[in-house]
Amino acid sequence: MKLLRYGPAGHENPGILQGDQRYDVAAFGEDYTEAFFGSNGLQRLADFVAANAGSLPLVDAAERLGPPVTRPSKIICIGLNYSDHAHEMGLTPPTEPVVFLKSTTALVGPFDDIVIPRNSVKTDWEVELAVVIGKRASYVAEAEAASYIAGYLLHNDVSEREFQLERGGTWTKGKGCDTFAPMGPFLATPDEMGDVNNLRLWLTVNGEKMQDGNTANLIFDVPFIISYVSQFMTLLPGDVISTGTPAGVGLGFKPPVFLRPGDVVELGIDNLGSSRQVLKAYSG
Amino acid sequence: MKLLRYGPAGHENPGILQGDQRYDVAAFGEDYTEAFFGSNGLQRLADFVAANAGSLPLVDAAERLGPPVTRPSKIICIGLNYSDHAHEMGLTPPTEPVVFLKSTTALVGPFDDIVIPRNSVKTDWEVELAVVIGKRASYVAEAEAASYIAGYLLHNDVSEREFQLERGGTWTKGKGCDTFAPMGPFLATPDEMGDVNNLRLWLTVNGEKMQDGNTANLIFDVPFIISYVSQFMTLLPGDVISTGTPAGVGLGFKPPVFLRPGDVVELGIDNLGSSRQVLKAYSG
Repeated sequence: MKLLRYGPAGHENPGILQGDQRYDVAAFGEDYTEAFFGSNGLQRLADFVAANAGSLPLVDAAERLGPPVTRPSKIICIGLNYSDHAHEMGLTPPTEPVVFLKSTTALVGPFDDIVIPRNSVKTDWEVELAVVIGKRASYVAEAEAASYIAGYLLHNDVSEREFQLERGGTWTKGKGCDTFAPMGPFLATPDEMGDVNNLRLWLTVNGEKMQDGNTANLIFDVPFIISYVSQFMTLLPGDVISTGTPAGVGLGFKPPVFLRPGDVVELGIDNLGSSRQVLKAYSG
Repeated sequence: MKLLRYGPAGHENPGILQGDQRYDVAAFGEDYTEAFFGSNGLQRLADFVAANAGSLPLVDAAERLGPPVTRPSKIICIGLNYSDHAHEMGLTPPTEPVVFLKSTTALVGPFDDIVIPRNSVKTDWEVELAVVIGKRASYVAEAEAASYIAGYLLHNDVSEREFQLERGGTWTKGKGCDTFAPMGPFLATPDEMGDVNNLRLWLTVNGEKMQDGNTANLIFDVPFIISYVSQFMTLLPGDVISTGTPAGVGLGFKPPVFLRPGDVVELGIDNLGSSRQVLKAYSG
């Protein structure tokens, strides 16, 4: 099953994707919230869809897509989880996962604009595989981690490198700016994914290939990450964990390359579709 | 006005504190959520209280207190914001605020237990003044910041120092463990606070004074912090910003002192009351 949300920002309706057709499931009566995931919502939605096959309303192709999940309690990110990316950042690949939080106010839809913050000169891109948590998770064993997965989605972990690395303290300032978390176009349940450890992920800027990696090269894989993070905090249904980016970010170029107003970023992951964002200058 | 929430965890009712009496305001019909703060809720609540003076039900003194706000979109913390604390951590006082996020799943009531995480040996305390945001804030000027404040509350920014500093990456692993954010007993609106830049804050462990500071020694004051953080992310109504801790944390002792099961932490700030937590070992 592939879940999407459509409509104006902050007023999205739930939908599903079947083939290349979007169907409205507002009649199901629930958005894709913590309560939905935490109450066996995926199975209930599948039952609803099966019971209404052939009669679900089509969604107009011109409708905006929102992020496939509502605002989660946490967007957790894993840093430096591909060794080639760690090297381009001038850092040693970590011996255990690097964990940071991204402000949930950064969440936007897959085709929304990315706003370059005021005084930003180093806005950068990061294509990432993200996993959505399906049930409350605390001290989960790695062997049990798969049962905590609701699905996967495509995430651009947009990052302001000066704010992240040159303004003191942790990475928080450069990771959570508004619009810095485009997610989607859809959430795919695990049965739609094939081998999660062999997914190509790519990103272009103005049509030029910048990132071209494969989840086979993740240092820490999804079950390990879920188990690991759940040792430090409880994961709630709907929480998102973004698993890190491969080489090819703007900071890794010599000299570095950063995004400017009008630039177009496109990105994709096998079985998770693609997204596209246009860069805009901040205008208060 | 002083706002509190009482009742079983996850099922709190709203209340207010007048003198030393707690009154139930469930009849007001709203919890202290983002929607409440974002829709002039404080004024509407004040009107409700005035209209029902003398007829509000008393809350039984035996009732548990929850945190004074529901789960916010963000708990933002300022690190190293008292120079004496920066020095005891072996760090130079920052030239601009150090910002990090604390998992909102860490939020608990002011008299709830603090659970020492599995495999933790360095659980530590931090008494802090926290400010609650009253309206959506982005690129706020310092001179305007006061109008974005809903109120203040007492926060113990519990921290696991090994997870925070010795496990790689940012501070996230040591700051957001479950129960690591006891808040309350109440939220006080600004008119209840007196001079926010001259509040004594203190913390004891098993009755022994460990921290005894004053907000006069904040490196960055509340209006500056609100303005500063709002340059990097939008603050939502109900979001909490914790302003940092003075000297006297366990890590600062030679040798360091950390919390163990059965220890009792008490803390307080002028005009914000006091709280008390008992340390428990994790038991799955």
